[in-house]
Amino acid sequence: MQKIIRGLIQKNNSKIFLIVLDGVGGLPVDGRTELDAALKPNLDSLALRSACGLHVPVGAGITPGSGPGHLSLFGYDPLDWRIGRGVLEALGLGLELGKTDIAIRVNYATIENGVIKDRRAGRIPTDESVKITGRLQEKIKGIEDAEVIFAPGIEHRFAVVLRFSEPLPQGSASIKDTDPQKEGMKPAPVTADTEQAEKVARVAEKLISDIAGVIRNEPKANFILLRGFSQVPDIPLFEETYGLKPICIAVYPMYRGLARLIGMPAPALKGDLREEIDFLKANYNDYDFFFFHVKKIDSYGEDGNYKGKVAKIEEFDRFLPEILGLKPDVTIVTGDHSTPSVLKGHSWHPVPFLLNSPYVLGNTSAGFSERECLKGELGIFPTVNLMPLALANALRLKKFGA
Amino acid sequence: MQKIIRGLIQKNNSKIFLIVLDGVGGLPVDGRTELDAALKPNLDSLALRSACGLHVPVGAGITPGSGPGHLSLFGYDPLDWRIGRGVLEALGLGLELGKTDIAIRVNYATIENGVIKDRRAGRIPTDESVKITGRLQEKIKGIEDAEVIFAPGIEHRFAVVLRFSEPLPQGSASIKDTDPQKEGMKPAPVTADTEQAEKVARVAEKLISDIAGVIRNEPKANFILLRGFSQVPDIPLFEETYGLKPICIAVYPMYRGLARLIGMPAPALKGDLREEIDFLKANYNDYDFFFFHVKKIDSYGEDGNYKGKVAKIEEFDRFLPEILGLKPDVTIVTGDHSTPSVLKGHSWHPVPFLLNSPYVLGNTSAGFSERECLKGELGIFPTVNLMPLALANALRLKKFGA
Repeated sequence: MQKIIRGLIQKNNSKIFLIVLDGVGGLPVDGRTELDAALKPNLDSLALRSACGLHVPVGAGITPGSGPGHLSLFGYDPLDWRIGRGVLEALGLGLELGKTDIAIRVNYATIENGVIKDRRAGRIPTDESVKITGRLQEKIKGIEDAEVIFAPGIEHRFAVVLRFSEPLPQGSASIKDTDPQKEGMKPAPVTADTEQAEKVARVAEKLISDIAGVIRNEPKANFILLRGFSQVPDIPLFEETYGLKPICIAVYPMYRGLARLIGMPAPALKGDLREEIDFLKANYNDYDFFFFHVKKIDSYGEDGNYKGKVAKIEEFDRFLPEILGLKPDVTIVTGDHSTPSVLKGHSWHPVPFLLNSPYVLGNTSAGFSERECLKGELGIFPTVNLMPLALANALRLKKFGA
Repeated sequence: MQKIIRGLIQKNNSKIFLIVLDGVGGLPVDGRTELDAALKPNLDSLALRSACGLHVPVGAGITPGSGPGHLSLFGYDPLDWRIGRGVLEALGLGLELGKTDIAIRVNYATIENGVIKDRRAGRIPTDESVKITGRLQEKIKGIEDAEVIFAPGIEHRFAVVLRFSEPLPQGSASIKDTDPQKEGMKPAPVTADTEQAEKVARVAEKLISDIAGVIRNEPKANFILLRGFSQVPDIPLFEETYGLKPICIAVYPMYRGLARLIGMPAPALKGDLREEIDFLKANYNDYDFFFFHVKKIDSYGEDGNYKGKVAKIEEFDRFLPEILGLKPDVTIVTGDHSTPSVLKGHSWHPVPFLLNSPYVLGNTSAGFSERECLKGELGIFPTVNLMPLALANALRLKKFGA
């Protein structure tokens, strides 16, 4: 379908806002979901004037990770485009990735007589692991033609990017984890599954021995296990696909990283909603498509904090008039997945959605909630339909056939 | 899916009406769509007793042309079956097309010293261009084994059909436009993209020089540009697919042409709704499936004439009891796409739909409108589901599997 859409693109001066309230969908506690409980007059009145519905990111019953959730929002079928674990980890730690990179998730581990005693090195404190990772970066700068980049993480986790001197063919990351998944076993050898991956496997093997050389006297973190070897997919760029000049406005590195994978610029913002809105206003004239990401709603959902999630929805609602004051041609408010606080995590539930433009029916949903969106003119639809709907409502799609 | 359906067909004496109110779906003006505003007691009462829903002809956000819109209604996936521009133009001008034909859209153009000065020959008046086209038909009857058929059009536009002496393989129309899309350039050469198209390209080249020979002294229309070379797709016939004996009742040539492409007979009617209904009554015993096309609702929508569109819906409503008086087993009322008068053209919005038969749930939609159909038992569904639903409600489909 993306190919069909690409052939129908026509440009104009319209502006599209895609506001992603991460994890916004929820489930009832005492009969009311987080959206039901939130006092949000602005979202409710917008929903009344909008095309509403619920969307399904991957498929019925499937709980999407943040990668598939966002790819889907951007119109990329998450079953066609997989983002490897290593890539997602590296993006989340703020690294930028390109076609010359292999990203790897790494665990510090404890080894004794060649056998793994603790796959997580006793979950050593973050400040300690950051220190060790810093030392690794000092000692190890490159292997063969690959630059080695360390990104410190939380507790025993970190990421490594091997940045080669030229683009790698797809398949170069087909390498098995060295983590045997069980204590009391030897680390698995670095095994390439494809011919293209052989060079990367050789470099990874050297990486393990170089790192072991530096940390072998650490009391706990005296070895490493490599997992989720991956490279960025050879994915069509957002701007080329849709003829839109996009910008990502997000505070968390992973979302910026996901945006950059499809060529969407994503300046580093570190503040709060206030800073994001100021940035949106300052850059309104320079872009066509604004991916505006609001993280905190999901964070409270993940913590199982129903009231906190409600409060964050209410906070966003107070900012909404300022956003709408810019008068975009198309405004979408939705999530990348649901995060019901009763589940303390992402869930498979369809995600509430509203699209406002001059070309909607409207007057079907009395507010922005799971049950009201169900009455909406868009019904329940696959998330990949979002971009075609946004483009159509911006009058950016020509007629198909005569 | 069409293949599955074909295997389940069982025949009986039931009659199916597919009434297509072209462009019937709309958008609100002061809160009310054209269907909301129309006084249409008969349609509303029928909707209450029917299975209602909304259908999507091609895909979310995609605005269908009349070709894809109708193919979809007849159960042919418009992404699998493309109708070329030349074919649609020729059908619209009333030509019949078969497997030996290549259809081409043609523009009169003004050329000076081998360079195009005006791609539309100053949009010469229709009566003038019709006269020139008549002269061309007198002078040019054939090239090699191809009969050359001219169909006069509006202003600078007309169509040519090259009718060869035997069926052409698919791919024979893969020829680039000679229209360079810009003034100040030479016409593009006739270029075949496939081996099968080489003979057609040779004939087209001769056609250009023959035509230029006749019109070279015209003040404006002294050259031609060829566009949209196409041939009819090798598409399964309606009757063979569904075991229904169909008839097309339509006043506009293009819809009759579309029907004939799938082997549906389409006698030339030139009158109004009155004549269409008289024809329907007179032929009720001779067919199983009646494609009944009502054009004017779309025409007013395309003109942005909200009141005119409302009036045409009301006019149809007054005729509806007479149609229902024939007591068909299955009656469907819908459109091939939406044409909101606020958009002055086809749109991507799902199309209101009702299906009446003894085997529906009913009592879900209080009337025939976009918002009421949304409450219907069929939900939002792909248009290609229409034919299986019609057949099922006519008890013409066997059980699938044991």
